[in-house]
Amino acid sequence: MNVHMSNEVDALRLSETAAVAFADAVAFDSHGLVPVVAQQHDSGEVLMLAWMNREALIATLTGGRVTYWSRSRQAMWRKGDTSGHIQELVEARVDCDGDTLLLLIRQTGAACHTGARSCFYRRAGEAGPEPL
Amino acid sequence: MNVHMSNEVDALRLSETAAVAFADAVAFDSHGLVPVVAQQHDSGEVLMLAWMNREALIATLTGGRVTYWSRSRQAMWRKGDTSGHIQELVEARVDCDGDTLLLLIRQTGAACHTGARSCFYRRAGEAGPEPL
Repeated sequence: MNVHMSNEVDALRLSETAAVAFADAVAFDSHGLVPVVAQQHDSGEVLMLAWMNREALIATLTGGRVTYWSRSRQAMWRKGDTSGHIQELVEARVDCDGDTLLLLIRQTGAACHTGARSCFYRRAGEAGPEPL
Repeated sequence: MNVHMSNEVDALRLSETAAVAFADAVAFDSHGLVPVVAQQHDSGEVLMLAWMNREALIATLTGGRVTYWSRSRQAMWRKGDTSGHIQELVEARVDCDGDTLLLLIRQTGAACHTGARSCFYRRAGEAGPEPL
């Protein structure tokens, strides 16, 4: 089922069966986690990297809202529930080895807890890390 | 120092001092590793995720050629030395927490060992993972 998003892009929502079939193709690590790259679907900007367990992945695929596993809090974390900076799922990809996910998303507001649009706002320069 | 690349984009090469200063801002995990997202600098395509230790990061920043740490082989792995599918460094970014890197690169040929341009060539569909 696709639901309409405000910028004319459909959010992806899969059935439980389809979500489980996709999760079965993922090689979770020894902690039961997989790294997830979130990329803004239209601009191609890489916004953040976070982690999912199997439950978070299935919740994301069936709910259309990106849900991570917080390693620091050891809890499910549906992005934006506190900040309002939600991530709507557009497409979910898995890599050749099954051990990394790439999500194309629609980011509302800032992806980064610092308020920056992307978590990757520093680059390597001759004086060390510098603002972009 | 910037070196000229064939598609008119300069490759980034930092001094050893600058590379060390950048590496000092990186929070390597308990295995001494950090996940690295490789993105084609001009198209924005996310090509792969791999891992670096401190030595691989410094070699990448000073050498202009992307070098990873292979967890399966437990060895340094300068991308393209065997396949010819090299990655030239354009920009290196670090995220807010210092625990993920994003590299803008110039990919020659396929990033994926399967021969695919990107490792992310499958997406979630109603029948499970399907080709893009």
